[in-house]
Amino acid sequence: MSHAPSPALNARHQAVRRTLASRGLDALIVTSLPNILYLTNFSGSAAIVVLTADRLYFLTDFRYLTVLHEAQGTASACPGLELITVEGSYDATLAGVLARQPWGRIGFEAAHLTVDRYHWLTATIDADGPAGAELIATERCVERARVRKDSYEIATLREAARRLSAVAAAAPGEVRRGLTERDVALAIDRRVRLAGFERPAFDTIVASGPNAALPHARPGERTITEGDLVVLDFGGVYDSYCVDLTRTVSVGAADTRARDVYAAVREARDQAIAVVAPGRSRFDIDAAARDALGRHGLAEAFGHGTGHGLGIEVHEDPRISRKRPDVDTEDEAVAAGMIFTIEPGAYLPGWGGVRIEDDVLVTETGVEVLTDVTTELVEI
Amino acid sequence: MSHAPSPALNARHQAVRRTLASRGLDALIVTSLPNILYLTNFSGSAAIVVLTADRLYFLTDFRYLTVLHEAQGTASACPGLELITVEGSYDATLAGVLARQPWGRIGFEAAHLTVDRYHWLTATIDADGPAGAELIATERCVERARVRKDSYEIATLREAARRLSAVAAAAPGEVRRGLTERDVALAIDRRVRLAGFERPAFDTIVASGPNAALPHARPGERTITEGDLVVLDFGGVYDSYCVDLTRTVSVGAADTRARDVYAAVREARDQAIAVVAPGRSRFDIDAAARDALGRHGLAEAFGHGTGHGLGIEVHEDPRISRKRPDVDTEDEAVAAGMIFTIEPGAYLPGWGGVRIEDDVLVTETGVEVLTDVTTELVEI
Repeated sequence: MSHAPSPALNARHQAVRRTLASRGLDALIVTSLPNILYLTNFSGSAAIVVLTADRLYFLTDFRYLTVLHEAQGTASACPGLELITVEGSYDATLAGVLARQPWGRIGFEAAHLTVDRYHWLTATIDADGPAGAELIATERCVERARVRKDSYEIATLREAARRLSAVAAAAPGEVRRGLTERDVALAIDRRVRLAGFERPAFDTIVASGPNAALPHARPGERTITEGDLVVLDFGGVYDSYCVDLTRTVSVGAADTRARDVYAAVREARDQAIAVVAPGRSRFDIDAAARDALGRHGLAEAFGHGTGHGLGIEVHEDPRISRKRPDVDTEDEAVAAGMIFTIEPGAYLPGWGGVRIEDDVLVTETGVEVLTDVTTELVEI
Repeated sequence: MSHAPSPALNARHQAVRRTLASRGLDALIVTSLPNILYLTNFSGSAAIVVLTADRLYFLTDFRYLTVLHEAQGTASACPGLELITVEGSYDATLAGVLARQPWGRIGFEAAHLTVDRYHWLTATIDADGPAGAELIATERCVERARVRKDSYEIATLREAARRLSAVAAAAPGEVRRGLTERDVALAIDRRVRLAGFERPAFDTIVASGPNAALPHARPGERTITEGDLVVLDFGGVYDSYCVDLTRTVSVGAADTRARDVYAAVREARDQAIAVVAPGRSRFDIDAAARDALGRHGLAEAFGHGTGHGLGIEVHEDPRISRKRPDVDTEDEAVAAGMIFTIEPGAYLPGWGGVRIEDDVLVTETGVEVLTDVTTELVEI
């Protein structure tokens, strides 16, 4: 379970209800588990929510009844929750709920419902009612609310970033000559858990020497060797919220090339953060990092976006990336309460790579860097 | 990457191609990542496959090009692979591939494509072609092949089960009075990683005392206490394949009630395994466990199914469960090559619980228990 206080949950429900009202929907079927957690604090692996103007129907099975009952009456109980126990199929139970209600326009999450479930639900509603009911595809009804974090979420992510920074400060001490990348990843994962995280937010990356040229390398049997640059990228889930941090360290004294590439990536990180403020375009933030790398001849070496939102998921909106002419029709400004990574990198096949990643919060007046660990090149 | 040899991959392609031919499909769009791994050995987080009678189009982005190139020419290279690099949107790249081909009936995985992607693809094909092309919903074209493991998979899962058994033999030594459930889970996770697993297959369960009554408890701050029964349920991913094992230990000497419940669950485990053989119904295997618990007055205490298939996913077919009158229209026999868990349990709210779980392979003549660690009640 997450522990957002009941009034915060109520405010989230109201935000989504305003969207429902604006689209003339009588109800919204929520099947995305991160969206369900956002609306209810529930972090189990199976549930469906149906949100209406005054109720929140919560469908789950026996495995989770005890935790739900325990949450009732506490300060983080979900307001307006009406529990429905699923005994067989979730979708059959959902269809039964729908059949007993007079709802006409019933929204569903088109990005989180598969075609086979949709076909089954449509056929069942046509057969069993409610008469005249229609399933309406919706996009981002809940996600839109999630982009700007509320004060509970900001406090949680700030604390998570503080804890991950402590892991990051200790992580270079785990990089030792003769260990494999896998050994180092295991040691970092242990530190993540000891720091109070529920689990790593993703598979920890330890990419050494030439492997550092792969942005998504998996730690393997390669041995840490004198002269390596080593990318350490790790994250943690704290009270259901994800943070993410990367540092690149040098095994022994870095040579001129390594120092130059590192300095360029660090400059890109600094320049991008300097642009973050309410009202700035997410594309401009990306461009600040990309331009800095370009000035050092590394434009081609930076193949991914500059950052991604953090929250209940480790990759969520906003995406801090290049504007894609075919998809991104308008500039999108970042706003106070958004939390995302800034993580420029330079990857040179055969040679290696550098990435530096921090987590930032857009404040009313500018930016707060939530992670706090040196960006100097650490030589070990 | 997984490392199935190229001839094994080819046999998997042919199995799916026979299904395509039987349904008159010119191509199948595969969007499920586990299915893509099964067909290609690729274990990255983003790809689309289009399988036809003689080709396998593989769409991925720059992050994975190096690992793909490295796999080419090795003994586990994917046969017939035609690489297409995605530079912007995956679905736009897919639509581009489709537009250049004369395919008419194009299957897609209805259980693994969301409604919004389906609507976008349909609209794009209608606009850009190919002329007369039609998207056809399919079910389990690849999953059907995955249910019976091939010799590479059996060898991998056997080795994984051997390694997990070693972790299980050591796990009771990590359960010590005064530690929290979370401490114990961390120690087990460390052993899982040191045993050579890529990662835990799911969040490790350490459920002590009354918490053991929750089949899906999360390890928390409760302290291990004299007289507890402690359920330890953990798994690992080895060369992309998942294994899963549970033991319940007693902290100090178990009382009569604990010994009785434990003995009943152990009997249920033994009885269920005794029924496993090619041609036996999966419902009969479940009934064997359920009947044993019923004879000890524990029928109501066993609320979940007896087992689930293991493979690229930690929960896959076959489901060893009760027959649901509304859904399961016919008996389904297990067959040689299937690998699944047998994991009966008894959960008594307020008191605690017991679960014992092993992984079994259906052989040509009966059953092989892949996990190997005592089922005696360990008192620590």
